[in-house]
Amino acid sequence: MGTPSVGDLGEFGLIAALTARLPQGPGVLLGPGDDAAVVAAPDGRVVATTDLLVADRHFRRDWSTPHDVGRKAAAANLADVAAMGATPTALLVGFAAPADLPAAWAEEFAAGLAAECAPVGASVVGGDVVRAEQLLVAITALGDLGGVPAVTRDGARPGDVVAVCGTLGASAAGLAVLSAGVRGHQSLVQAHRTPTPPYAAGPAAARLGVHALIDVSDGLLADLGHVAERSGVAVDLDSSAFVPSEELRAAAAELGASATQWMLTGGEDHALAGCFAPDVELPDGWVRVGRVHAGSGVTVDGSVPTGVAGWDHFR
Amino acid sequence: MGTPSVGDLGEFGLIAALTARLPQGPGVLLGPGDDAAVVAAPDGRVVATTDLLVADRHFRRDWSTPHDVGRKAAAANLADVAAMGATPTALLVGFAAPADLPAAWAEEFAAGLAAECAPVGASVVGGDVVRAEQLLVAITALGDLGGVPAVTRDGARPGDVVAVCGTLGASAAGLAVLSAGVRGHQSLVQAHRTPTPPYAAGPAAARLGVHALIDVSDGLLADLGHVAERSGVAVDLDSSAFVPSEELRAAAAELGASATQWMLTGGEDHALAGCFAPDVELPDGWVRVGRVHAGSGVTVDGSVPTGVAGWDHFR
Repeated sequence: MGTPSVGDLGEFGLIAALTARLPQGPGVLLGPGDDAAVVAAPDGRVVATTDLLVADRHFRRDWSTPHDVGRKAAAANLADVAAMGATPTALLVGFAAPADLPAAWAEEFAAGLAAECAPVGASVVGGDVVRAEQLLVAITALGDLGGVPAVTRDGARPGDVVAVCGTLGASAAGLAVLSAGVRGHQSLVQAHRTPTPPYAAGPAAARLGVHALIDVSDGLLADLGHVAERSGVAVDLDSSAFVPSEELRAAAAELGASATQWMLTGGEDHALAGCFAPDVELPDGWVRVGRVHAGSGVTVDGSVPTGVAGWDHFR
Repeated sequence: MGTPSVGDLGEFGLIAALTARLPQGPGVLLGPGDDAAVVAAPDGRVVATTDLLVADRHFRRDWSTPHDVGRKAAAANLADVAAMGATPTALLVGFAAPADLPAAWAEEFAAGLAAECAPVGASVVGGDVVRAEQLLVAITALGDLGGVPAVTRDGARPGDVVAVCGTLGASAAGLAVLSAGVRGHQSLVQAHRTPTPPYAAGPAAARLGVHALIDVSDGLLADLGHVAERSGVAVDLDSSAFVPSEELRAAAAELGASATQWMLTGGEDHALAGCFAPDVELPDGWVRVGRVHAGSGVTVDGSVPTGVAGWDHFR
């Protein structure tokens, strides 16, 4: 008897094993096991987003535990919900895997999803499992706006303060550490494996009337570029606002990299970037990093930054 | 210059090309292009379901056009929403493909999704595109219950009438025709390529108080087996209720197959099966096929059918 694979369990056995790892919270009116789930949407609107993560492209099984991959896959989607100003309520998960994947990998992945969901009050309410050549997970997250207007990317106005809540650059630095195969820098490596988005900051900013909000997943410059383009404005960042942590400086020194570059172009930390009216007192956790102007594009200290292409999932 | 591939377009170019094929209906409060979509959920509950479809496993590019694959992928999920008694409102679509997939394939696939959604009033509100070794689509469907209780699989009671709305066996027959490589039988082949689930029958049955409802996707015997197990009852089908169409009989004769077997075990037509109180007058389109009894399991004319295993996505 070896370790059982997902193929050994079969579709219904695998679903039962995964479902056992997925506790259902109070907003779940009907959880896994029927044709569809039913989730409370008290606001009368539902926020919905979906992401695909492919093995060896978005995560590596030799670099991350299955629990880490589950947490990160959930985080990427929950952060998108938060970036609309909404509170996450539910995930649905499509799981495609080769038949020889150890069943324990799938079970720990599910436990990681549940672990990331629990603190925000969300639940994994449904999913699908299929056999495929390549390990791939498809996550859909739902959220509730709780009476606030959805915060889009197109509401930034000249004069707004640009601010960031959450970590910048740590995930990119952790990835660089893993890629270089050097030792140490465990806090950065862990930041790459399991980002910690500031979920509650999204709805809190929405209640304050933030003009525009975005999840930083492609890198701050690229994502603020989306805000600038959609809002028809220019964003200028103040380089002095980007103070690397001690850990980031140490890793940059060892790898011959730029800590500031990691902060400006690294994605996957899932910080939130927002554009606030100039008279708003920024809530705790937000750091002022720049200003919105008339015009177009993103500059740093008034100059166009170089070598900062964002991530393209098809290149 | 050859035909452009999805890799040639890149992530943002591909998203723009797909989004152009996806009109947004009135229930869409915010469509594609932000961190997440916002969809009306007037009932205060949202129905949600997800499915993965893998090339060469759930569809074949040489047997179906991309438009057909899009329609079928949408149909499988919209039917799950209908089987809860809900009206579909939105789809989210994850699209994983090799970089050399023709962009036109992806665009026609998106057009197929939109074509299947439009008549039911649903819209494709968001998605994700990634590069992967194997073509795979992940669909999530949302729906609104419009004030009725969600209809689950566990409400069947002894004495209930078992009835079916929609087509049985045509998709399985069409698949057999394609697999055998024989000519003709185009209506069955088309039923396999683009099933036509009776979406409106789900909410209509819910308004009538149907006790249990399920989307027939694994085959009628297998799916009624789920209802019987979850409801703690037995289901006995009346073989005389399964009258094959002329087309089904002709294909069965040519291929040496059983038309009745196709009707009892074929999935993918996405008919609805329901268990109604004995005094309910069945709405138009529903055909009485059996009765619920105390006990367990599914029988035909009182006997356990043989050779009727359902579909297991991991075997």
